[in-house]
Amino acid sequence: MANEAVLTPQGENFPQWYQDVVARAELAETGPARGSMVIRPWAYAIWELMQADMDRRIKATGVQNAYFLLFIPMSFMEKEQEHVEGFSPELAVVTHGGGEQLAEPLVVRPTSETVINHLFAKWIQSHRDLPLLINQWANVVRWELRPRLFLRTTEFLWQEGHTAHATYEDAQAETMLALEVYRAFMEETLAVAVATGEKSAAERFAGADRTYTCEGLMRDGKALQMGTSHNLGHNFARAFDIQYLSAEGRREYVATTSWGSSTRMLGGVIMTHGDDHGLRLPPAIAPHQVVLIPLAEGEVEGTVDKLASQLRGEGVRTSVDRRFHLSFGRRSVDWELKGVPVRVELGPPGAGRRPGHRGPPGHPGQDPGGGRRGRAGRPGAARRAPAQPPRRVAGRPRGPHLPGGRPGRVSRADRRRRVLPVGLVRLPGL
Amino acid sequence: MANEAVLTPQGENFPQWYQDVVARAELAETGPARGSMVIRPWAYAIWELMQADMDRRIKATGVQNAYFLLFIPMSFMEKEQEHVEGFSPELAVVTHGGGEQLAEPLVVRPTSETVINHLFAKWIQSHRDLPLLINQWANVVRWELRPRLFLRTTEFLWQEGHTAHATYEDAQAETMLALEVYRAFMEETLAVAVATGEKSAAERFAGADRTYTCEGLMRDGKALQMGTSHNLGHNFARAFDIQYLSAEGRREYVATTSWGSSTRMLGGVIMTHGDDHGLRLPPAIAPHQVVLIPLAEGEVEGTVDKLASQLRGEGVRTSVDRRFHLSFGRRSVDWELKGVPVRVELGPPGAGRRPGHRGPPGHPGQDPGGGRRGRAGRPGAARRAPAQPPRRVAGRPRGPHLPGGRPGRVSRADRRRRVLPVGLVRLPGL
Repeated sequence: MANEAVLTPQGENFPQWYQDVVARAELAETGPARGSMVIRPWAYAIWELMQADMDRRIKATGVQNAYFLLFIPMSFMEKEQEHVEGFSPELAVVTHGGGEQLAEPLVVRPTSETVINHLFAKWIQSHRDLPLLINQWANVVRWELRPRLFLRTTEFLWQEGHTAHATYEDAQAETMLALEVYRAFMEETLAVAVATGEKSAAERFAGADRTYTCEGLMRDGKALQMGTSHNLGHNFARAFDIQYLSAEGRREYVATTSWGSSTRMLGGVIMTHGDDHGLRLPPAIAPHQVVLIPLAEGEVEGTVDKLASQLRGEGVRTSVDRRFHLSFGRRSVDWELKGVPVRVELGPPGAGRRPGHRGPPGHPGQDPGGGRRGRAGRPGAARRAPAQPPRRVAGRPRGPHLPGGRPGRVSRADRRRRVLPVGLVRLPGL
Repeated sequence: MANEAVLTPQGENFPQWYQDVVARAELAETGPARGSMVIRPWAYAIWELMQADMDRRIKATGVQNAYFLLFIPMSFMEKEQEHVEGFSPELAVVTHGGGEQLAEPLVVRPTSETVINHLFAKWIQSHRDLPLLINQWANVVRWELRPRLFLRTTEFLWQEGHTAHATYEDAQAETMLALEVYRAFMEETLAVAVATGEKSAAERFAGADRTYTCEGLMRDGKALQMGTSHNLGHNFARAFDIQYLSAEGRREYVATTSWGSSTRMLGGVIMTHGDDHGLRLPPAIAPHQVVLIPLAEGEVEGTVDKLASQLRGEGVRTSVDRRFHLSFGRRSVDWELKGVPVRVELGPPGAGRRPGHRGPPGHPGQDPGGGRRGRAGRPGAARRAPAQPPRRVAGRPRGPHLPGGRPGRVSRADRRRRVLPVGLVRLPGL
């Protein structure tokens, strides 16, 4: 079948399947600088939807966004001993600027605890200034010798929360709150079931007292760290002298936290939901939730326009693929690779017969073989109005990958439990 | 008067006034690395609103977002002769990564023509791939010896559009379209009147055939470049060998464009609308469009909550300032400095009498001096319901700065012409 040629099957070689789907779905590619990544428009549009949803959740906890700096003076990195030891092997260093050698080298931020805590020391005077809750969306750099797109690249995009509190207990509560924001986002928006827990001392963030993680379970049976939250205790407060005047008039050190999630989550989405036919996107983060694919130019245009405008009117992100210079099969496979939740194929009766085409299901009675994986269309539509072109809702039955179960099998309990990675949108007027 | 102590008057020293308002409104401050800037939450929230609006306008022209790379191999910079000559004095260079000296130094992107055109050469094969319309939101670095916050810093945030077209004429049309997007955004969203035009050969972007600019007129009578759009012709296509197969089967070079706007626009907003009392924000980019300031704790809480929920219900971004440990005057001045379009002060009758307080207008009959600059309240509200606390809509009459006119004087024609920097929101139930 055609798609076997497109992607290496997961069961044969999972890492190769991952590379294939990232390339064929035009998600990302390696950039010209070592370990770098180019996020292509389709993946970037997914990231924008993820970012907007995560940002809303973070702000709902009272956190404000701000922007700090890309370049960190080397001396700042060195103020917290464990921190610099942990990050030293991964640093990219600017030694020249404006045509001259710099007196002090600048580190390209691998994370921003040092600069942000430096500013916290200026901004925090009194217990009235606490808690101080800040988040930054930014790019960071951690030198990577064996990059894998989205999962491990020298530069990546992320958000990093940084908060300061009056007590260690408040910092611990914030650490757990951020972890819960991540868990809820991953389960509700990404439809990825995660396990949360504390990391061992050896795996702790460099400079943290306690580190917690959200681990997603990928389809190859491995876990992926998809977000972490750290109680930094008084470590950075001491290193950067962040003190406040308590209500009782005493000078006290604040306790700080930090927590981050990144474009790596996109790798997690791919490895949780993708299958041998391509990516599969949860509707919440699908740039197009429905793609209408007219078979040929002309004949069904009116129907396509009407359907598109109805769907858009109901708030469904809808796209029409009019690339008629490409074969119908090629267009259909494209959107299957890209993981669009619902494809609607439209054409005159009988035009859908394409023996051997693997993607869209056969119309019952037309291509029984194609119906094996396909969701049956609505043959009644053609019967009710024979003059109308039959419209078929294409796509495999899709659900979250359930341990031990076949992909695509979703129990009713599962449907209730979470956003399905792919759900059929109610198509008005069909 | 109190505010004279807060900000240096514009007429006395405009650059000092600018520094004062940026500091006192907590918009930004200098970071610990040379030429760097920290964008504080209030300014970052303004930037997020600007970004969302600009992003929507850019996408409406068919452009897609993507993300490229921070680090550019030095050899890439050198492929276009004029480009590297123009940018060389401003480059920051990474020479060490992962603990080792790099074989080839990496430039921290000052702009992304080189990497993006490198990728265009991979992505473009046929005339069917054109036009290719890409935008990136990113940070860029241009070494700066004499930084001014927002206006000129070593690192800044921006968007850079990059497009490829079949013909030079198509590229020229895109160049002008981007310029028009900028003009419309600046006039309609930022309420900044701009002059557009072509730059002289000496002022052209390094590597461009033609450069166009949107120039805002600041209150000190100087122009500020707030956005530029470049027709790069075939210069980068030749340097990066971007060719396509035309419909007639010929290999042709594409023509490319680039266009950018940055956090500098925020500096333009400050210098266009700000006055001796603080920043003044157009409602479209005001993080809080209305701030409710209850005079004291307790008494007016119910009214405040009701009003806030009514306003929010109508889609007005509304905040309540309950920092009762601060004096009422301090809170009022804070929001005036930050440029919130509408302040609503609430308190029991008579409580507003604070001789000498400059910000809120006097209630008619209470403090005639204060009413000089103030918009009269609605004394009728107190008469209609004497048991209710009087609610007053505070704020100077505010309008765009008109050349030759006094700030605050707005003709009816002007009101029709553009979004006013500050408009009174209809307050339901008042």
